[in-house]
Amino acid sequence: MAADVYERVMDLARRRGFVWPTSEPYGAVAGFIDYGPLGAMMKRRIEETWRSFYVVREGFYEIECPTIGQEAIYVASGHVKGFSDKMVQCPHCSEYLRADHVVEGGGRCANAATLDEAALCRELQGLACPACGDIFGPVEVFGFSLMFQTSIGPGSQRTGYLRPETAQGIFTDFSRLLRFYRDKLPFGATQIGKSYRNEISPRQGMIRLREFTQAEAEIFVHPLKKAHPNFARYADYRMPLLAYPQQQAEAPAVEMSMAEAVSSGTVANEYVAYYLALTHEFLCRVGVSPGRLRFRQHLPDERAHYACDCWDAECFSGRFGWVETVGIADRTDYDLRAHAAHSGDAFTVFIQYPEPIRRSETRVVPRMGALGPRFRGQAKAVADAIAATDPTVAADSAGFTIEIDGAPLEIGPDLYDVREVEVEVQGEEVMPHVIEPSYGIDRILYAVLEHSYDEEPVEDGTRTVLRLAPPIAPIQVAVFPLMNRDGLGEVAVSIGDELKAAGVMAEYDDSGAIGRRYRRQDEIGTPFAVTVDYDTLEDGTVTLRDRDSMHQVRIPRASLAETCRMLCAGQAYFAELE
Amino acid sequence: MAADVYERVMDLARRRGFVWPTSEPYGAVAGFIDYGPLGAMMKRRIEETWRSFYVVREGFYEIECPTIGQEAIYVASGHVKGFSDKMVQCPHCSEYLRADHVVEGGGRCANAATLDEAALCRELQGLACPACGDIFGPVEVFGFSLMFQTSIGPGSQRTGYLRPETAQGIFTDFSRLLRFYRDKLPFGATQIGKSYRNEISPRQGMIRLREFTQAEAEIFVHPLKKAHPNFARYADYRMPLLAYPQQQAEAPAVEMSMAEAVSSGTVANEYVAYYLALTHEFLCRVGVSPGRLRFRQHLPDERAHYACDCWDAECFSGRFGWVETVGIADRTDYDLRAHAAHSGDAFTVFIQYPEPIRRSETRVVPRMGALGPRFRGQAKAVADAIAATDPTVAADSAGFTIEIDGAPLEIGPDLYDVREVEVEVQGEEVMPHVIEPSYGIDRILYAVLEHSYDEEPVEDGTRTVLRLAPPIAPIQVAVFPLMNRDGLGEVAVSIGDELKAAGVMAEYDDSGAIGRRYRRQDEIGTPFAVTVDYDTLEDGTVTLRDRDSMHQVRIPRASLAETCRMLCAGQAYFAELE
Repeated sequence: MAADVYERVMDLARRRGFVWPTSEPYGAVAGFIDYGPLGAMMKRRIEETWRSFYVVREGFYEIECPTIGQEAIYVASGHVKGFSDKMVQCPHCSEYLRADHVVEGGGRCANAATLDEAALCRELQGLACPACGDIFGPVEVFGFSLMFQTSIGPGSQRTGYLRPETAQGIFTDFSRLLRFYRDKLPFGATQIGKSYRNEISPRQGMIRLREFTQAEAEIFVHPLKKAHPNFARYADYRMPLLAYPQQQAEAPAVEMSMAEAVSSGTVANEYVAYYLALTHEFLCRVGVSPGRLRFRQHLPDERAHYACDCWDAECFSGRFGWVETVGIADRTDYDLRAHAAHSGDAFTVFIQYPEPIRRSETRVVPRMGALGPRFRGQAKAVADAIAATDPTVAADSAGFTIEIDGAPLEIGPDLYDVREVEVEVQGEEVMPHVIEPSYGIDRILYAVLEHSYDEEPVEDGTRTVLRLAPPIAPIQVAVFPLMNRDGLGEVAVSIGDELKAAGVMAEYDDSGAIGRRYRRQDEIGTPFAVTVDYDTLEDGTVTLRDRDSMHQVRIPRASLAETCRMLCAGQAYFAELE
Repeated sequence: MAADVYERVMDLARRRGFVWPTSEPYGAVAGFIDYGPLGAMMKRRIEETWRSFYVVREGFYEIECPTIGQEAIYVASGHVKGFSDKMVQCPHCSEYLRADHVVEGGGRCANAATLDEAALCRELQGLACPACGDIFGPVEVFGFSLMFQTSIGPGSQRTGYLRPETAQGIFTDFSRLLRFYRDKLPFGATQIGKSYRNEISPRQGMIRLREFTQAEAEIFVHPLKKAHPNFARYADYRMPLLAYPQQQAEAPAVEMSMAEAVSSGTVANEYVAYYLALTHEFLCRVGVSPGRLRFRQHLPDERAHYACDCWDAECFSGRFGWVETVGIADRTDYDLRAHAAHSGDAFTVFIQYPEPIRRSETRVVPRMGALGPRFRGQAKAVADAIAATDPTVAADSAGFTIEIDGAPLEIGPDLYDVREVEVEVQGEEVMPHVIEPSYGIDRILYAVLEHSYDEEPVEDGTRTVLRLAPPIAPIQVAVFPLMNRDGLGEVAVSIGDELKAAGVMAEYDDSGAIGRRYRRQDEIGTPFAVTVDYDTLEDGTVTLRDRDSMHQVRIPRASLAETCRMLCAGQAYFAELE
């Protein structure tokens, strides 16, 4: 059987230095990968593009929190209790397996992740173990925590976890961030970094990693103001949406503008719609094929109970089918409320009213005329303590107890009234809602590799090309001397230096025939190649070759660096030079 | 007592969003910090500058390996056995403490890290516990592993460690890297990422972190070729070197050129000298004060036994004294040899001789005339097995045993000769030596903050300024409308967008008096500020103000973005505009 696209892409990725098995001399460990020189460069370029959207354009500053967090954070977030998969151990080969994957793989149930332990046990019986092939009899299914655990400091008294998502660091910095943004909503913060998920038995290469890179934005908005201030940017942006009614009816996705998506109620609000469109634009920019990209709404039973809307951007893979690469959710105030409850901090924003509001409130009002003679110098302190008493306590009984200088003091009903008072209110404490776009960088990188991979018949066989977008390609311009003699090599080296000084990643290569050098660069996605020949020495021009069209133009060396800079930034196109 | 420089710098850092305590609502954990919006931006700029030296200029591609590694890696590297600190638990308050720090703090011994457990026990007796103040009686000192440990996957059978340095990932990728660099020495690879050290009791803020960022380069060189191919770049670069003889004589550092440093034997070889100079240039570029920077050679008893030379770049801190921020070592073949021994892989490079070398070797030579008749069709296989026999085995005895098709076969001395044969050798397998510059990014960032911090008396009090270099400053240009009316605000916003499009990080601010806005930006190190006023509306010019000189020039809006881009890249200087 011919290698499928995944095998061909990963073979290229290993051979050319994009992705390697980790710590290979000791036997690679499933769920971990190394990015080689080209993969790491490409990954950084994807991250930089993400920053150009979220940090520079949207203005959501990036923060950087530790990957190890103390237990209290993940008790509050619910991960200690709820972040687990249901596991079964094969009684024959002792392999640990994800129960839902085995059930789904056996064709018993399409959505086994929603089943409870008892149901999974029933479904498993009679299925074959995917590791050894033997048939399961009665088995036990139990939860396995997906957080990596460790101990902080000596004495093992302090449990730490490797973070399962970068988001919690942003939530726990909420008060600091609020002050940084001068106490105003909306504001957002982002984080790009490693997250961890101790998968039971990962078997899907780059798609299911135990250590992976997330890029997350947490956008804090007023719960009653979900109109996005810059919605106009994407109001007319059209893209296909696979909302849950279509999924339930097995109908295809519906293309619509974001304005229509919101007005029709398909998408919950302008914030969610705005980041759906931004995500579509971002993914296409980095090289996901628009035809292999869809936005799928979570089904009501799939959505977290607290989320009021949730969508996945899914990329199609020839091996894995539709793969979730980005999640975009309106998480309401779930996270902040949980941290407020567990930490005792407020996690609210004081929102001043445009005008102070007058309203009546029930208050305990001290009778100063009675207090003065009775308490003399202490009358003021007693009056303050009476006024601070909960009106329900005061109303329910014939008197109550206050504390003055640490000593209890009985207050009889003759010393106060409970009555309605008109008060002026300046504003209110509001707990913001959170809009969260969360990107899986490794999966995006894999999707871009697969969608960029092309084999093209040429005269002498097959040309393998990665059609990477110039801003994402690890090497952006290859520089070749026609041959390494008569000073051509030195000129090519100095042209490479000029390109690097202009911020263009250039690579010099003088090894083998020019045709072979082109092929080597095509295979790693280098969009442009410059050749230095004898004419260069005479008239100062070089040949610039475009990877995709294989067309060539001659341009003066003097304008080469700026031309390449524009081409590689996506601000100019090769066809314009022809 | 007035706050020392550390307290003043950290107060600013917390208040303005450079560095925050981590997960504050649950009580910060010692040894972990959060980088706030400005700190994270500054950190990325330092990392990008590092890449411009090592990745772009030196051509050492960056790779990215997981932070979790399997146990075998760290058994081979020696960390499982040797990466520990000596710990004592206070019998009074139960606090765990680093024994050497307590002894040094008690003034008993300057270099307590070199003492063994028994000696530390003796020195501790009679000292006061730094946590509770009670006096130690007889105590026990024991080793505490500094690696964070976890389990990979279910069943707890697979131990994993959080990496104590990024270097091991580069070593274990050696064979892949060698192929990527087409099997030629020298080559190098780099990595920037998190490393972990489970400190016993960290009390020095950003200087002693349990989770920190390293930038490391591992440069693989031929063991006999330690002349750097580009040494000319730094041969005349002069800097003060505190070699170990000066330290032993308590003499000051000696300023010399790198050429002198190598020729005098002060520095072991050109590679080490080259990266000393590069490190000096890099640290000064990002804003370490040259007057508060020194390069100190490890003393013979301080240096790892395998290293043939080792230097620390140390930055002076008003609070902490001289702090190691970079280590530069010639680690010889220690690391590769250890991994070769533990993994069984070769970790060598085949170096072809310019001309094949003829030399005589002792070989076992089968007597074909005797073998043919005796073994017929098997004669060739028997001859091959005889020729493959170790000559020392064959020479020592009267015959030996070979194996043919799995069956043993006795070979008598009549069937072979042991003699000297002339052979042609094409080249040899060489295990490279490793030159390692290793940078602690967090400590560098702290040193830059402290060295940039300035308080300057001005008319109305004190001006606090961070004198950050423009390429490192988180916000590079502040954009102010003189006031937010008559369209000035809109013009300022669109100027900010133009700056961002040119790759310059701009921030808009219209809040408060211009003077206060300048002060806010001075405090976070913003090097330039643009003011939009009524003249802007008339003649299209804006005011550009320099943070350090506080001078202002008027320049046309049309040239502003390019001017700021040049200024912020360090390719132009404000004084040239005046």
